[in-house]
Amino acid sequence: MQRTLIKNTINTIDEKVRICGWVHTKRDHGKITFIDLRDRSGKLQLVAYQKMSELHNEDVVEVIGTVKKRNERSINPNLPLGTVELDVESYKVLASAGPLPFDISKEQLDLELPTLLDHRALTLRHPMIQAIFKVQAEIIDGFREFMKNNEFMEFQAPSIVPAFAEGGAEVFEVSYFQYKTYLTQSPQLYKQIAMSAFERVFSVNKIFRAEPSVTSRHLTEIVSLDAEMGFIESWEDVRDVSEECVKHIFERLSRTCAEELKMFNATIPVTVEKTPTISLTEAQEKIYQSTGRDVRGEKDLNPEDERDLCEIVFKETGSELVFVYGYPTMKKPFYVYPQPDNPEFNEGIDLLCRGVEWLSGGRRINDYQQLIDHVEKWNMDPSKIRMFLEAFSYGVPPEGGFAFGAERITKQILGLSNIREATMFPRDMERVDFRLSSIQESSNE
Amino acid sequence: MQRTLIKNTINTIDEKVRICGWVHTKRDHGKITFIDLRDRSGKLQLVAYQKMSELHNEDVVEVIGTVKKRNERSINPNLPLGTVELDVESYKVLASAGPLPFDISKEQLDLELPTLLDHRALTLRHPMIQAIFKVQAEIIDGFREFMKNNEFMEFQAPSIVPAFAEGGAEVFEVSYFQYKTYLTQSPQLYKQIAMSAFERVFSVNKIFRAEPSVTSRHLTEIVSLDAEMGFIESWEDVRDVSEECVKHIFERLSRTCAEELKMFNATIPVTVEKTPTISLTEAQEKIYQSTGRDVRGEKDLNPEDERDLCEIVFKETGSELVFVYGYPTMKKPFYVYPQPDNPEFNEGIDLLCRGVEWLSGGRRINDYQQLIDHVEKWNMDPSKIRMFLEAFSYGVPPEGGFAFGAERITKQILGLSNIREATMFPRDMERVDFRLSSIQESSNE
Repeated sequence: MQRTLIKNTINTIDEKVRICGWVHTKRDHGKITFIDLRDRSGKLQLVAYQKMSELHNEDVVEVIGTVKKRNERSINPNLPLGTVELDVESYKVLASAGPLPFDISKEQLDLELPTLLDHRALTLRHPMIQAIFKVQAEIIDGFREFMKNNEFMEFQAPSIVPAFAEGGAEVFEVSYFQYKTYLTQSPQLYKQIAMSAFERVFSVNKIFRAEPSVTSRHLTEIVSLDAEMGFIESWEDVRDVSEECVKHIFERLSRTCAEELKMFNATIPVTVEKTPTISLTEAQEKIYQSTGRDVRGEKDLNPEDERDLCEIVFKETGSELVFVYGYPTMKKPFYVYPQPDNPEFNEGIDLLCRGVEWLSGGRRINDYQQLIDHVEKWNMDPSKIRMFLEAFSYGVPPEGGFAFGAERITKQILGLSNIREATMFPRDMERVDFRLSSIQESSNE
Repeated sequence: MQRTLIKNTINTIDEKVRICGWVHTKRDHGKITFIDLRDRSGKLQLVAYQKMSELHNEDVVEVIGTVKKRNERSINPNLPLGTVELDVESYKVLASAGPLPFDISKEQLDLELPTLLDHRALTLRHPMIQAIFKVQAEIIDGFREFMKNNEFMEFQAPSIVPAFAEGGAEVFEVSYFQYKTYLTQSPQLYKQIAMSAFERVFSVNKIFRAEPSVTSRHLTEIVSLDAEMGFIESWEDVRDVSEECVKHIFERLSRTCAEELKMFNATIPVTVEKTPTISLTEAQEKIYQSTGRDVRGEKDLNPEDERDLCEIVFKETGSELVFVYGYPTMKKPFYVYPQPDNPEFNEGIDLLCRGVEWLSGGRRINDYQQLIDHVEKWNMDPSKIRMFLEAFSYGVPPEGGFAFGAERITKQILGLSNIREATMFPRDMERVDFRLSSIQESSNE
C-alpha cells in the first residue's frame, strides 16, 4: 500500500491508509491509546484500542488504519488536522527510540541555547525549529528566484583563497599542501571578476570570519547571498534592484511560510512603494534633532543609531526599511566608488530594517586607473589581488552589487534572540557541533 | 533611452536603440568600420562610417543607432543575429581595455590549460567558456528544481568540521582559534542528521579533498549535490529517485542549453525508460565474457572496467546509463547498508555513464545498534561522530541517498578534457587562482 502523507489524510476520510512517522506524543487511557504521529507534512492523532501503549516518543512506526472524522466534541480547531483522526488497525515499529534527554513534544522547547545545540540532532525534530529552516530555505531560494528572473547567472565562488587583500587578523588559515591559504571572508572580488565577464551574476556561498567574539550576532561560517551587475547608470540602480530583491523575498515568505511565521508571531516588515533613502549625514542630523544625541561626523552608524534611525523613519514614512547612502570613502574598502562631486564620501549603501543592517552594497570603481590609485592609497599589495586587477585592465562597465547573510535575515524576520538559532549547525569560537573544549579532550584520550 | 539587449534587436528593426557591450572584434575597411559588439545576450554587427576605428577589442561602449535588416549578400546564417546590423549614429566609451595577452575573438580559444587559467578573468569572456558555466548553473539548478518538486528541503551543510571519522590524510586542516578543525570531505553525516529530522533533504555545498594529485580528474574544492530520503522501502527507491533526478537534469539541459551543447558538439546521454541495474559481480562476469579480462572478485570497478561495462550495456540495451549495485561491505564506509541475505555485499549503488561514475549512493544503516556494531568493526572512534550517532539513537526510518559532483557532470556532458575547465576558479595542488609557487614568492618579498 502506498504511503499517505499526514497532510493528505484530510482528503481520505473513511479510507484505509498507510502512514509513517514518529511518535510525537502519547497519552495512555487504559484500553485506549492516543498518539500524535508526526511526519514531514504534519501531525495526526491516532486512536488505538489495546495496542501501541508500549511505544515511546520518537519511535518510528508504520501504521495502517482508517481515517475518521472526529466527533464534534473532540475537534481541535488549533490543529490543521484537528478534525480527523486515524483508527489504528495494525502497525509496525520501523525503529525504536532510545532515552530522550528532554521532551520535544511541548509546543515551545524552552531550552537554554547550549542545550538546544548540544542535542541538535534531536531539537531539529521540533516543529518550531523546523519552521526556522523552512523559512531560511525560502529566503535563500527567494533570492535565487529573483536573481534568475532578472537574468543574473549563478556562479560558484571559491572558499579557499590564496591571500588576503585587505589584511585583518579575522581570517582562518588552511594548511594547503606545503602552502598557506585562507578561507574566504567574502566573494566580493570573485563576483566582480565574474560580473566583468557575465554582466549579471549571483552566488550563494559560505564565507568565514575568525572573529574572536561570542555575541548573539557572531558566527564563523555564514551563508552569503551575493549579487553584482554591470552597465548600471548610477548607484541608484543597485539600490533599486536590492530593494526589489528584498521585497520579492518578503512576498514569497508571506505566500509560502504563513504558518511558520505565525508560530513565531512574526510579521513581514512593512514596506512602502519607494523605500526612503537618506545620506549618512542626513541620518546623523535626524538622530540629533530627534534624540539630542550628537553623532554628526561619525564615520558610521552605531547600533543605537541604527535603532533610532529606523524608529524615526518608520514614524515619518511608515516604512520599516530605510536605505542609508554615502559613507566616508577612506573608512570603507578600496573598491567602493567615491561620489564624483564629493569624493570624501562614497556611493555605498546599507539597507536597515527594525534597527539592524540587513544588506550592504553600492557602486564599485570600474576604471582601472582609479582602482590602481585606490590600491595605493589603501596601502594594499596589488600582487595579492592581481587576478581582480587584471579583470579591470580589460575593460569593465560601470557596476555595483550587494550582499546579505541568510542567517541574519532569518533571525531578524522571525525575531530570534540569537543568530545560532538560525543556523542548523552553527560554528563559533567555542563550538563546532560540540563544545570544542570537549572535543580536544576526547581526541587526546 | 533604455538599454536594448542585443538578442532583442531582432525585434526592433528600423528602430533607434541604445546598446551596451564589449568590442568583441573589429574590422577596419577605410571609411567604414565593422564591429561585433558582445553583451550577455549575444553578438551584433555594428556598421560605423568614419568613426569607431580607434577602438580596441574589449573596450566597453554604449552605442546609439538604428537596427537594420542586412542585405541578402551580407546575411550570416550561422549567427543568431546574422540577419540584422546596427547603423551607428553615436557612441561613448565607458571603459577602455588595456593590452590583451591573446585574442579572445576567435571561435575556439586554443590555449594551453595553464594559460587559460592564468588569465581566467579574460578567458571567462569567451562565449565557449561562458557556455560551460551556463550549463553548470543549469545542472545545479536542475538538481535543486527536481528536489524541490519532490518535497526535499534544502539545508546548508557546514564546511568546517570538528574531526574526521574515517581517517585518511586527504583532509585540509584549519587553524580555528586555539583548536584544530578540518574542511569537510562530504556532507554525508550532516545530511543523514538533517534527514532524521526532515525526512527529505538536499544540499548544494562545497567539499574539499587534499589529494596530492594533479590529474585531469582532481580538484581540491568541489560543488557536491547531495540528497537523502527517509521512509524508503528498499535501496531501489533511492536508485529510482536518483535516476529521475538525472533524467530531469538532462531534460532541462536539452531545453535550456541547446545552443551551448551545440558549441561543444555535445549530446545528452541516451537513456531508456528503465535504466539497467546490474550487480558488481554480474558486471565483472560480463566484462570477463566480453573482453576476456578477468576482474571477477575485485572489490570495485577500475577505470577500464567502467569503460568496458558502459560499452557492453549500451550495446545490449541502448542505454548510456547503467547502475552498478552491491559492493563488498567492508571496503565501503561504515554507514552503507549490508544486503540482508548476503551481508558480504552492501546496498550501495553507482551510476555510470560514458565510461565514468557519475553518481554514488545507496541505502544506509538506520538501526542504532547496527551502526554501533559497524563503528566498532570499522575501528572508528565513536566520540568523533557522536552527533551523528545521537541522531540515530532517537529513532530513524529506513533511509538512503546519493551525491554527485557538479564539475564532473559538467565535464562529462560537454566532453571537456580536464575538470579544471569545468570550474570557474579551480583549486588544485599547484594552483589557487595563481600558481602557488609564484604566490609564495611574492608574499616573501
